[in-house]
Amino acid sequence: MTDILQIVLAKRPAGDVTADCFREETASLPALAEGQILVQSRFLSLDPYMRPRMTELASYTPPFELGKPLTAGSVGEVVETRNPRYAKGDTVIGMLNWATHTVHDGKGLRKIDPALAPLSAHLGVLGMPSFTAWYGIKHICKPKAGETAFVSAATGAVGQVAGQLAKLAGAQVVGCAGDDEKCAWAVREAGYDACFNHRSESDPGAALDRLCPKGIDSDFENVGGKIFHAVFARLNNFGRVAFCGAISEYQDKEPMAGPPKMFAIVQRRLTLQGFIVSDHAPLMGEFAAEVGGLLKSGKLKSRETVIDGLAKAPQAFMGLLRGENFGKLVVKVS
Amino acid sequence: MTDILQIVLAKRPAGDVTADCFREETASLPALAEGQILVQSRFLSLDPYMRPRMTELASYTPPFELGKPLTAGSVGEVVETRNPRYAKGDTVIGMLNWATHTVHDGKGLRKIDPALAPLSAHLGVLGMPSFTAWYGIKHICKPKAGETAFVSAATGAVGQVAGQLAKLAGAQVVGCAGDDEKCAWAVREAGYDACFNHRSESDPGAALDRLCPKGIDSDFENVGGKIFHAVFARLNNFGRVAFCGAISEYQDKEPMAGPPKMFAIVQRRLTLQGFIVSDHAPLMGEFAAEVGGLLKSGKLKSRETVIDGLAKAPQAFMGLLRGENFGKLVVKVS
Repeated sequence: MTDILQIVLAKRPAGDVTADCFREETASLPALAEGQILVQSRFLSLDPYMRPRMTELASYTPPFELGKPLTAGSVGEVVETRNPRYAKGDTVIGMLNWATHTVHDGKGLRKIDPALAPLSAHLGVLGMPSFTAWYGIKHICKPKAGETAFVSAATGAVGQVAGQLAKLAGAQVVGCAGDDEKCAWAVREAGYDACFNHRSESDPGAALDRLCPKGIDSDFENVGGKIFHAVFARLNNFGRVAFCGAISEYQDKEPMAGPPKMFAIVQRRLTLQGFIVSDHAPLMGEFAAEVGGLLKSGKLKSRETVIDGLAKAPQAFMGLLRGENFGKLVVKVS
Repeated sequence: MTDILQIVLAKRPAGDVTADCFREETASLPALAEGQILVQSRFLSLDPYMRPRMTELASYTPPFELGKPLTAGSVGEVVETRNPRYAKGDTVIGMLNWATHTVHDGKGLRKIDPALAPLSAHLGVLGMPSFTAWYGIKHICKPKAGETAFVSAATGAVGQVAGQLAKLAGAQVVGCAGDDEKCAWAVREAGYDACFNHRSESDPGAALDRLCPKGIDSDFENVGGKIFHAVFARLNNFGRVAFCGAISEYQDKEPMAGPPKMFAIVQRRLTLQGFIVSDHAPLMGEFAAEVGGLLKSGKLKSRETVIDGLAKAPQAFMGLLRGENFGKLVVKVS
């Protein structure tokens, strides 16, 4: 028997996620069955997509179960094993519980080399958010020299990589973020040509008119809502939208409608494509080679926020939904 | 000097197109200048895309000019020539005025063999509407066996070909049209598996639930508005929309908004792509070979409505916008 700490979904949110949606529990784990491993979590990734999973809305992943631990992309260490594929001490990445320890059958986990990079990087600039950015930029947005590429949530875990990849492709890159410090970082460190603060500039259309005078050729969409509507209205002929997320809408009770003048999709021959990176797992090797190379050569910057302690995960997640994190948000579990 | 009959744009419509938007005029043409030809129109094509061109809305083609003849895809005969590329008696296709005769510099016209098919077919099943259907089905909808393909305006000039091409690709094909006779033709002649009357069935969602029990994998969108919203809500994972037109919206004063739950584009990894066939002119040869072959072997049916006399073009066009035509609508000019 192992006593562990875990955080379960106590209640589904209606509107804003509140602290009482979570409950911290101590649990006793039974002895491992044949084929199982016990993984001690090191880092846990908090990502916007978790919000839709807290409700019963049909989403691309099944909803979290009430009364059960939430799950998250995590890096951990195998501390006990009855599975011949895993040795004690292996470092693994995959979906683990919001918990100090997870009993797992090993399926869907992947061993990583802890010497390669800081463990948390595997959840960010070397991991799923970065892969998401890479896929959307490379396969949907396809920015190029002479074009203007827009990235909403410009300094988020996904956006910061998307913006830098668009810049490396030669485009003029414009973003928006939730405070002046993030906008300054986007321009100074991530190479954005411009970034506006969507909280202090209440009319995103005016900001876009100022910063994207030649219109927008591609949009890496992380925010949705009125920012997306303003971008859509300014897409050039043959514009592309990689629709990755809509964090501005996740806490709304009423789902956000599409853009007010939908027929522009024909008039301007637009392509809007929603995607989920897990569908493209076969491209992971190509991504890792390309983005790993950029990291090694110093061409890709990244920024993360590390929260210390599992117990702080709910507050950190609520902050993420309000845009309070800066860059990739991870929780150091142990 | 040649006296001709022409129809000019007398007034831009606000809402429904009315008879006073058009004015019939007799005009005297001057002698041809060097390089010009005089083309006598035989058939003139009426198409929904002309409606946005009547207003000053930004559209993919420049608006018609007030006081000038409207233009249309037409087939005509060269009756005078001062251009060495054209001989008297040549049959040509291209944009000509809503007029008995057009003075033209020959650019953008193409000679056709009048023995190949009835002249009007070059404006329909061998022409732009059919090419539009072919492009959208082949390059965007990509229907296949086991899937459900939906086509709105199922018996229109574009829809009737789109539906048949989707069926030939092996999909279950469902459409909607504006009366029972059209729906019956769609099933009996064009091979649709089902077609509902969107006027008698006020809730398109209920009709789609009944006729597309496995959801919709591709949508060839000609209608827009509430029919598109109902289709969008029923798109399966990885669904594709070829956005070709939105005839239900062209006469609305308020442009139609996008679908109410736009985030489904991510949840279900949807692709929405607007297109205009003139962008894809280099594929015309491939289209002509493929669709010409299907026609020759009897695998493709087509239906047209022929209106006799240029003077009736305005009324016929107003009827087109109300869905009164059946299949491709052409005007026999002379």
